[in-house]
Amino acid sequence: MLINSTRLFAGMQEHRLDAIVATMPENVTYASGFWAMSQWIRRGPQAYVLTPAPALGEPVVIASSGLIDLAADPDVWVKEILRFGKFVIERAPDAKLDVHDSRIAELMAQDDESDAVDALVKAIKMRGLRRARIGVDEIGILPQYWDRLAEALPDATLVRAADVFRYARAVKTAEEIRRLRRSAVIADLSIQSALAAAREGATEMDLARAFHSRTIAEGGLPVLGCIGVGTRSAMTNVQPSERKLVRGDVIRFDVGGRYRHYRADIARNGVLGEPSRKLAQYHRAICIGLERAIGMIRPGVRAADVFEACVETVRREGIGHYQRSHVGHGIGLDGYDAPNIAPSSADIFEEGMVICVETPYYEMGFAGLQVEDTLVVTRDGVESFMMSGTELRVV
Amino acid sequence: MLINSTRLFAGMQEHRLDAIVATMPENVTYASGFWAMSQWIRRGPQAYVLTPAPALGEPVVIASSGLIDLAADPDVWVKEILRFGKFVIERAPDAKLDVHDSRIAELMAQDDESDAVDALVKAIKMRGLRRARIGVDEIGILPQYWDRLAEALPDATLVRAADVFRYARAVKTAEEIRRLRRSAVIADLSIQSALAAAREGATEMDLARAFHSRTIAEGGLPVLGCIGVGTRSAMTNVQPSERKLVRGDVIRFDVGGRYRHYRADIARNGVLGEPSRKLAQYHRAICIGLERAIGMIRPGVRAADVFEACVETVRREGIGHYQRSHVGHGIGLDGYDAPNIAPSSADIFEEGMVICVETPYYEMGFAGLQVEDTLVVTRDGVESFMMSGTELRVV
Repeated sequence: MLINSTRLFAGMQEHRLDAIVATMPENVTYASGFWAMSQWIRRGPQAYVLTPAPALGEPVVIASSGLIDLAADPDVWVKEILRFGKFVIERAPDAKLDVHDSRIAELMAQDDESDAVDALVKAIKMRGLRRARIGVDEIGILPQYWDRLAEALPDATLVRAADVFRYARAVKTAEEIRRLRRSAVIADLSIQSALAAAREGATEMDLARAFHSRTIAEGGLPVLGCIGVGTRSAMTNVQPSERKLVRGDVIRFDVGGRYRHYRADIARNGVLGEPSRKLAQYHRAICIGLERAIGMIRPGVRAADVFEACVETVRREGIGHYQRSHVGHGIGLDGYDAPNIAPSSADIFEEGMVICVETPYYEMGFAGLQVEDTLVVTRDGVESFMMSGTELRVV
Repeated sequence: MLINSTRLFAGMQEHRLDAIVATMPENVTYASGFWAMSQWIRRGPQAYVLTPAPALGEPVVIASSGLIDLAADPDVWVKEILRFGKFVIERAPDAKLDVHDSRIAELMAQDDESDAVDALVKAIKMRGLRRARIGVDEIGILPQYWDRLAEALPDATLVRAADVFRYARAVKTAEEIRRLRRSAVIADLSIQSALAAAREGATEMDLARAFHSRTIAEGGLPVLGCIGVGTRSAMTNVQPSERKLVRGDVIRFDVGGRYRHYRADIARNGVLGEPSRKLAQYHRAICIGLERAIGMIRPGVRAADVFEACVETVRREGIGHYQRSHVGHGIGLDGYDAPNIAPSSADIFEEGMVICVETPYYEMGFAGLQVEDTLVVTRDGVESFMMSGTELRVV
């Protein structure tokens, strides 16, 4: 299972919630295993998971009938499902259905609950929660639907609860760690493929195609592909163009796809030919800063302290004016999970957090340099997911 | 430009709006050309575009400082930009900046407006709209931020307006049509590559890798990849698995990526070896139904009439029990734009609409069959974007 139920229940208890409703795609998948495709690739389609507090009953998935094959997937561990909306799936007259199709047939035989809110209201009443205090992830539900939910449940108290999911998701389960590790490895391998395509005259798009193709070949899907060369590398979110590589160009990768819905986000740099003295010195400084940050991380350490030490180290090691708003973040179904490694952060590292630590440096007219590793916090330190080193790769 | 200003202004007038605020990624890109990356790949990050009614001033983009390089992109035609949030970009001491970097430097030299709502309130006041009736796309703005906006503008009237954007986006501009055509062609070519990989023992994943790799090679990015073989093809949203192709298997593709942010969504079928009589007959019926629907479409025709004629045709041609909830939809930045080709639809076809017309049929224990074309409505009919025919491809 993906969900860290212990932590979700602790978060619910802290906010005195009798139940919580997932509405944004990351939280729906997290709370049930249900990958509600239309919700992931569009804005507006509704899918929910109602999770009552312990002893108040089992969770319920609310799925549109058009997604019922995904709700019937064996990866979905929540077994009670309410469906809504008209959709037609026929059945061959004498067919012996396999397990997955039998499950689809079973769910399609259930009533059509009309629409997402009606189905959610029914689920809440089924669980005896009509007078409950219910946390609702406010990010994925349409505002009109929130209003209708409040009207249909006049005796319930609805409170915004996206932050409770964010709190729960911060400490990963074993299955999440497995997927995140593979996702990071795919991104790492994809950078190697892109660097193998780097030569004089190759374009940023050539590198991007090599990068994404390897991601696909390894079973991932592209998401983040900031790949810039020369002075363009200094653009924070540089999108690959037809700009050609020339000797002396730095190459910056800030990249990562998805593997089984889990994100990657890593960064590395290459250079075509020998680096200038400044490039080598600055790159060395950000690598040492990253090393310093990673070396400090273990359960109980404050994220803000890691930020300070990291920035201080980069300054001392060669970029005296180095400034950052953060030097890392958690990663999971969302590309930016808790914790936030920033000066004002109150977050404290815990075992099982999967985090991206990064020391980007953007200088217009010169270059963008960035190293970013992904790692899991262990009982007494960290374990890195990275296969490649942070060194500036001369190609 | 992507935006159909005439139509957006007409929609605003109908709802008596003095201004409209885009908040979901599709609408932000549509209203300004600004591709606010973090908003596209995550839920929560905020970016807005304020568009006043004609004669009430020029539009304003609200962008986080971390995305300022994307807001400075030459493709962004809205030139007034307010930025919010701390972010550091250095500048090489003696560097001569190119046009893009100079624009970034110019925007970073502006004040930090603290956060997205503060910036939006400032833009609204700058345009003299503090007492105005303002439509706000309710899908992308965080509910907390809507509340803060209402508090900061006690004399303004805020109304939900995502539907006004949906109305405007239904009739495409020339640049949108160009991108959508290319997006459809990329999907079509990608199916050809996947079919070329279809042989006994190849898996659904093998076909998916061939499909997505071609999409990448053609300059697109993967989004929708429902590829199923044998009885698995009957699963509506089938996700590629390790299931191996055997002789007689049907292959169903319901697929399409993005090209320069514009979606594709097309469907085709193959079969490994000779099709059974039922397969050939059913496939022929859905093809004739599709042809019938496409043949009817021209400006002024009711979408509901096309639905009825299409379903009726499939029934008459060989699937007597054929039922559907819709047989197509618009496509653009969103995979499901207006119009909706459904029985209860009030939509009427207009010149410049780009639509997907489809006749899917799902029968558990047998197969899923689906043909889906993308086309643009012209002055007196339609022009198809498809390169391949709808025939069942024997491989």
